[in-house]
Amino acid sequence: MLNHGAVDRIFHALGDSNRRAIVERLSRGTMSVSDLAKPLDITLAAVVQHLQVLEESGLVRTEKIGRVRSCQLEPGGLRVAEDWLSNRRGLWERRFDRLGELLDGPERPNPTPRKKAKT
Amino acid sequence: MLNHGAVDRIFHALGDSNRRAIVERLSRGTMSVSDLAKPLDITLAAVVQHLQVLEESGLVRTEKIGRVRSCQLEPGGLRVAEDWLSNRRGLWERRFDRLGELLDGPERPNPTPRKKAKT
Repeated sequence: MLNHGAVDRIFHALGDSNRRAIVERLSRGTMSVSDLAKPLDITLAAVVQHLQVLEESGLVRTEKIGRVRSCQLEPGGLRVAEDWLSNRRGLWERRFDRLGELLDGPERPNPTPRKKAKT
Repeated sequence: MLNHGAVDRIFHALGDSNRRAIVERLSRGTMSVSDLAKPLDITLAAVVQHLQVLEESGLVRTEKIGRVRSCQLEPGGLRVAEDWLSNRRGLWERRFDRLGELLDGPERPNPTPRKKAKT
């Protein structure tokens, strides 16, 4: 069962291109906040805010070691979003398959029961 | 190869909870705009705007038949988002596996070549 609040937070977090750029970079390894900020065209304060949204959504984990905050991807968060998408796609595809069967098959008021396999 | 503009449009579209509710409903079947709007707590005009964003992102296709606009999910759009997520997760997991191998294995300056299988 998916928690809808969690799904909402994850898709909200992924809806921003700077936050996706952070996820993209962290998929290649753990990184400090200042290293993360370098190639991004936004202030360090903005990076920290984006990280907070990502952390609250469960997509990223950060840890302060001495004076450096280290950031790490949480693959489970990505998995929640993948599952949401593949479940919706699966529902649609199964519906489409059943529609195809109905169009192919003969008219019948009730579904024909399947033959039971010998036990 | 993923088109980054397409990925941006898809995640931007999925970042809104009303648009995800539309995707959710369309995963269960084709629907008219007014049927789609019924359970949503927003105006019909807002639903039309959300549909436009979803259509431009490639997640939904709409077609006007007579006076009714019919809406249908485009599963390929969901697939693009799934692929983006699973590729990021895959990169992270492979990196993590390699790190585990490095920590487990003995120190060696060069990787040991694998034995060739007999052909």
